[in-house]
Amino acid sequence: MFSTGHHRILSVLSRSGPQSRTDLARILNLSKASVTALVRELIERNILDERERVFGFGRPAVMLGLRRDAASFIGISLQSDPVHIVLTDPHGRTHVHKTMPLVTDVEACLEAMVGAVRAVAAEAPEGVGALAGIGIVIAGIVSSDSHVCRISATLGWKDVDIGQRLSALTGLPVFVENDANALIIGEQLFGESGDLPDFSLVFVSEGIGGAHIIGGRLHRGRHGGAGEISHSPIAIDGNALPCRCGNRGCLETLAALPAILGAARRNGLPGDIATIKALAADGQPEALSILHQAGTALGIALSQIIQFIDPARIIIRLDPDLLKSVFARALRQSVEAHVLRRESYETDLVLTALHPRDFATGASSLAAQHFLFGNTSL
Amino acid sequence: MFSTGHHRILSVLSRSGPQSRTDLARILNLSKASVTALVRELIERNILDERERVFGFGRPAVMLGLRRDAASFIGISLQSDPVHIVLTDPHGRTHVHKTMPLVTDVEACLEAMVGAVRAVAAEAPEGVGALAGIGIVIAGIVSSDSHVCRISATLGWKDVDIGQRLSALTGLPVFVENDANALIIGEQLFGESGDLPDFSLVFVSEGIGGAHIIGGRLHRGRHGGAGEISHSPIAIDGNALPCRCGNRGCLETLAALPAILGAARRNGLPGDIATIKALAADGQPEALSILHQAGTALGIALSQIIQFIDPARIIIRLDPDLLKSVFARALRQSVEAHVLRRESYETDLVLTALHPRDFATGASSLAAQHFLFGNTSL
Repeated sequence: MFSTGHHRILSVLSRSGPQSRTDLARILNLSKASVTALVRELIERNILDERERVFGFGRPAVMLGLRRDAASFIGISLQSDPVHIVLTDPHGRTHVHKTMPLVTDVEACLEAMVGAVRAVAAEAPEGVGALAGIGIVIAGIVSSDSHVCRISATLGWKDVDIGQRLSALTGLPVFVENDANALIIGEQLFGESGDLPDFSLVFVSEGIGGAHIIGGRLHRGRHGGAGEISHSPIAIDGNALPCRCGNRGCLETLAALPAILGAARRNGLPGDIATIKALAADGQPEALSILHQAGTALGIALSQIIQFIDPARIIIRLDPDLLKSVFARALRQSVEAHVLRRESYETDLVLTALHPRDFATGASSLAAQHFLFGNTSL
Repeated sequence: MFSTGHHRILSVLSRSGPQSRTDLARILNLSKASVTALVRELIERNILDERERVFGFGRPAVMLGLRRDAASFIGISLQSDPVHIVLTDPHGRTHVHKTMPLVTDVEACLEAMVGAVRAVAAEAPEGVGALAGIGIVIAGIVSSDSHVCRISATLGWKDVDIGQRLSALTGLPVFVENDANALIIGEQLFGESGDLPDFSLVFVSEGIGGAHIIGGRLHRGRHGGAGEISHSPIAIDGNALPCRCGNRGCLETLAALPAILGAARRNGLPGDIATIKALAADGQPEALSILHQAGTALGIALSQIIQFIDPARIIIRLDPDLLKSVFARALRQSVEAHVLRRESYETDLVLTALHPRDFATGASSLAAQHFLFGNTSL
C-alpha cells in the first residue's frame, strides 16, 4: 500500500507526533525534496494533514501530523470467553467496543467474526477512517508470518490458517498474534514504554503470559514460543501443585486468577478477587496468605526474567483489584529478595490494570503497526 | 585500524572461509572494483592471501583467505584460580597456554597480567602474527563498553577500570567480558553454532553462567546482567538450601560443582566428580541421587530459558566427567518434562566439555572479534 519511504515518515509521525518537513528530512537522513514529494503523496491520500505553524527564530514551519481519520482497525480477542471486538484509529483510540460469545468451531468462529466486523464497522462514528486491517489475538502459539494459529489449548486449534481465511472473507489484511505479544506491540505503538529498546510484559488472567521487545523488535523466538511463562516450574515452600498441563509446580498453579480463586474456595472464602482483596486488607489470614503466595510466585518468575534477559522495564498487567493489594506488595518484595545484586539491575516494575478488552485493542494495534510501519523496524 | 569495508570483507572470510572477489562483491552487494581495491589493501597489509584457483565452467577464480599470521590475540581468564592465559590466531587456534595464580589486588593483578602477556608473546612459535589485542574474562558484570568490571564477587572488585589500565600498560586494545558472554562470543566466531541468529549457552563450574545471542548479537541486557542464572530460584522436592548470596533455593545450590561435591561429602562419598560419576554408573544410590538432582535442577532452568526466550539451541558446557553421566540424562529428562508442548519448541540441547582454559580462549575471541569485525554486526 505504501512505499518504504512513506512508512518511514509514518513511523516517525506515529512515534514522535507532528514534525516539520525539515525535521523529517533530518531525522530520516533524506533530502528535503524527497520528503516533500513523499509528504505530498500522503496528504493527497488523506493520511497526513498540515497543522499549526510554529513561529521560531527562522521562517514559520508547517507541522505535518498523522490524521485521526487516515484509517481504522478492528481488533478481535479470541483469548477467552466472551470475545471482545474493538474499532480503533491510528492514534490508538477506541471508538467501538462489542462482545460476543466465544465459539471454537473454526467455521462458526469465522462466520461470527465476519458478522462482528460488519457490525462494528457499521457503528463507526463520523470522522473514523476507512477500515485498513484486522488483528486477531489468541492464547497459544502463532506462525512467524502472523497468519496461522499453530496451537491453542483454549480454542482446541492446531495449525488453523485463521488469518488468511478471514482475509479472504473480508478482503482486508489480517494479522494473528499471541495474547502477550499483542499487548506488548500495543504498548510499543501507543504506550509509555514505546521508546525503550528492551522491555518485557507479563500479564495475569486465566493463565500468565509474557512477551519481550529486544533491540526494538518483538522477540518471537525460534519457534514463536518466547515469553511463555505460565508453565514455568516455580515451587515455593515445597508446594508443587498439579497443573492442567500434566506437570507440577507451574507458575499458573500458584499465581493465575483460577489458582487464587480455587485456593479461596478451598479455604471457605468467597470466590471473587475483590472480596479476597478486601479480606486481606482487613488482615484475614487465609486471604492474606493466598494473595501473598501468588504475588511471591509471580515475583520469582519476574526475578528469573530479570536475571535471564535483563530488560529495562517489566510491565505487569493485572486484574485492577490486584493492583494495590498484598499481591502487588509481595510481588515487589519477592523480586527484591530473589534478584541477586538488585542494585545492579534497577529494572522498573510497572504495574497497570488489565481489562478483558485490552487484548482486543492489542489485536487492533497489530493491524495499525502493519499499516503505519510496514516491514520497517520500529 | 580497518575501514568498515575491510571489516565487512574480513567478517565474510572469517565466517564462510575463502571466497573469490566475485563472490565477495555479490555477498556484500559491493562493486567488483570496490572489492578489488579493499582486497588489495588487505593483501598489502598481510591480512589476506590468495589461495588455490578453482576451475569451474567460467574463468579460473582466485580464492582469498584470511591469513593465519594476520594477527594474534591473548586471552586471560580471571574467572577462577589459577588464571589461564592463551595466545590464539585469527582462526581460533591456540598456540601458547600458560597458567598463573590468581591475585585479586588490582595493582598486583595488573602487574601479573603484564608479565604474562610478555611471557606468552615471547613463546609465540614461528608463523604467528603480531599481537593485535587482549581479552579478559571475569565472573561478574562488565560495563557495556567492555572496559570496566562493574562487579565481581570472585575478585572482590567494584567498578575497576581494568581494561583501560591494561591497555595503557601494554599499548594494545583490551576488552573485558563476563565469563558466559566470552564463551558464547567464542562459539559464535569459531564454533559450530556461529550461523544461528538465536542461541544460548549455559556453563556449569564453580557457579552457573548463561549468555544469549539474539538476532546475531550478544544480548547484554539493559544493565549488562543478561544470562545470570546461578541465583535463579529453583527448588525441587521442597529442597531449598541456603545459598552464599543470602537467599535459598538458588540454582547453584543444587547444580554447580561445589554443590555436587558438597552433597557427596555429606553422604560420605569421595569429593571428586569422576568418582561420583563412576559410583552412579555402578548404581550407588546416593551418587545417583546427587547427580540426578543436579541435572534435574539445571534442566528446570533450561526449560525456563526455552519458554522465556525460545532459542534455536542451548549449548551446555560441562565438566567432561558429567557429559555422559546420569547428570546429563536427568538434565534432558527434566527439559522434556518441564517444557510445555516440547514438540513445538524442538530446541537443540548440545552438551560439550568445558575445560578451565576455555574461558581464556573465549577471552581471546573478544579481541579477535574486534580485530575482524570492528563494530560490524556478525
